[in-house]
Amino acid sequence: MKVADLEFEQRTRDSFARQPAMATLGVGVESIAAGRVVLQMAHRADLTQQHGFLHAGMVAAALDSACGFAAFTLMPADAGVLTIEFKINLLAPARGPQLRFEGAVTKAGRTISVVEGKAYEFEAGSDERKLVATMTATVMTVRGRDDVRH
Amino acid sequence: MKVADLEFEQRTRDSFARQPAMATLGVGVESIAAGRVVLQMAHRADLTQQHGFLHAGMVAAALDSACGFAAFTLMPADAGVLTIEFKINLLAPARGPQLRFEGAVTKAGRTISVVEGKAYEFEAGSDERKLVATMTATVMTVRGRDDVRH
Amino acid sequence: MKVADLEFEQRTRDSFARQPAMATLGVGVESIAAGRVVLQMAHRADLTQQHGFLHAGMVAAALDSACGFAAFTLMPADAGVLTIEFKINLLAPARGPQLRFEGAVTKAGRTISVVEGKAYEFEAGSDERKLVATMTATVMTVRGRDDVRH
Amino acid sequence: MKVADLEFEQRTRDSFARQPAMATLGVGVESIAAGRVVLQMAHRADLTQQHGFLHAGMVAAALDSACGFAAFTLMPADAGVLTIEFKINLLAPARGPQLRFEGAVTKAGRTISVVEGKAYEFEAGSDERKLVATMTATVMTVRGRDDVRH
Repeated sequence: MKVADLEFEQRTRDSFARQPAMATLGVGVESIAAGRVVLQMAHRADLTQQHGFLHAGMVAAALDSACGFAAFTLMPADAGVLTIEFKINLLAPARGPQLRFEGAVTKAGRTISVVEGKAYEFEAGSDERKLVATMTATVMTVRGRDDVRH
Repeated sequence: MKVADLEFEQRTRDSFARQPAMATLGVGVESIAAGRVVLQMAHRADLTQQHGFLHAGMVAAALDSACGFAAFTLMPADAGVLTIEFKINLLAPARGPQLRFEGAVTKAGRTISVVEGKAYEFEAGSDERKLVATMTATVMTVRGRDDVRH
Repeated sequence: MKVADLEFEQRTRDSFARQPAMATLGVGVESIAAGRVVLQMAHRADLTQQHGFLHAGMVAAALDSACGFAAFTLMPADAGVLTIEFKINLLAPARGPQLRFEGAVTKAGRTISVVEGKAYEFEAGSDERKLVATMTATVMTVRGRDDVRH
Repeated sequence: MKVADLEFEQRTRDSFARQPAMATLGVGVESIAAGRVVLQMAHRADLTQQHGFLHAGMVAAALDSACGFAAFTLMPADAGVLTIEFKINLLAPARGPQLRFEGAVTKAGRTISVVEGKAYEFEAGSDERKLVATMTATVMTVRGRDDVRH
């Protein structure tokens, strides 16, 4: 592993650690690579909708973070990342018991990056997994205080 | 107010009360009308991203609920609602201190309904408000156990 | 009308006139205002899908142009506009005989603008119209040759 | 190849041939497989926007067809396909000279299917290709005259 890689990995972990919402939802980092971030969480009854499945918004929140940080790994060290928009398709109810959220950069641009997200449910110890949602997110590279005025 | 109206309003309040995720995020009902639901919440530090703004996923979760329940008000009494997909544009950082989430049905179909959502931030007691996000959600009317096999 | 208004209107008409695709589809300008552009076209059999309705892609193409030019009216005189992404909901089959495409800016940013589009069908001479599609488009202000490297 | 395969392939080719819009744009079928359809077209000056690139709406139209027909291959023989919504990200200007549009089914449901589309540009005879756009489309299986009343 190159020094540059260590830099982006640590930088991404640090930024993730500064997202209180992820801690509140119980979302953690599974892996970080250049242009690719995987997060995971366990199904939790207090985050469900009326049928006992994980609320679509919770799936969206975790996938949005996976996508944003995937783009962040490829950005300059002094840049921040801001989600401009995302679109999610809910393919199946998210039952868990475990969920994995993968963000992978489709295109890294100077200003605009596009990232694909996929959410899977699985059981610990099993090789099977089921695709429950897909996302496309458009994120922006921001500098200084640009983040609040895009 | 007609009896039929009372029916859908109570039915919608009951269904909302069965969404643990909304209670967890501190989201409450402001108003319910035929084809239109308004939710609200206060900014909370434990639901923020790395810059101290409400996490985009939290905004999306509340807007998705506002949109889903707006469609639900127009559905048959024995039906359930399921979000198929949504798309959100984040127009400005969500600082609060208060947030309002409006869902309004654009088209109510037999199977598929389309709903527009708008999220605003404002200060209690002020007439000013700022649009921070827009959503388009596609939801499905489900019967019986269809909800898990769309 | 102010001189500045005349400037953006003429500038927008000139740019529209340089879109061969719009001429090919028979799309014309109905009106141009600051942050709002309305286009129109007639249903044409050679632009239909297998059921005789206007192809969703043709509705999307005209709505995308309406949205892009709506944002363009608010941009600096030396800037160009580029669509980053759009999302369209097809609410009803587009039968015509006439179609109107409205683009209205939701948020005009320095770099990124968000525009809402609505497509209607109607009969000439009638006050009735039917909403057949809605769009949300994200467009970018580009300078010089930036347009090809966003 | 099984008889069943021949059936869906012929059925898809027949339906494609009944889309006048595709002939008008010069879009043809490259290949049809179960859950996957590839279309192609050549860049054409009369389908461009103001910078000489293929208009985003033309890319969207061809991708929408690729996605719709990909879902159609998996539907019952008496069903029709209707696009409910799609979202497209334009990653790079579409210069051509040749374009390929791939639709691949992510999830085939009874009522609702989700399809991913990718548009590439390339030169005839070259192995290189460049991704210029991605799409996610939600399509509906329709029976009888349902197609006009979803």
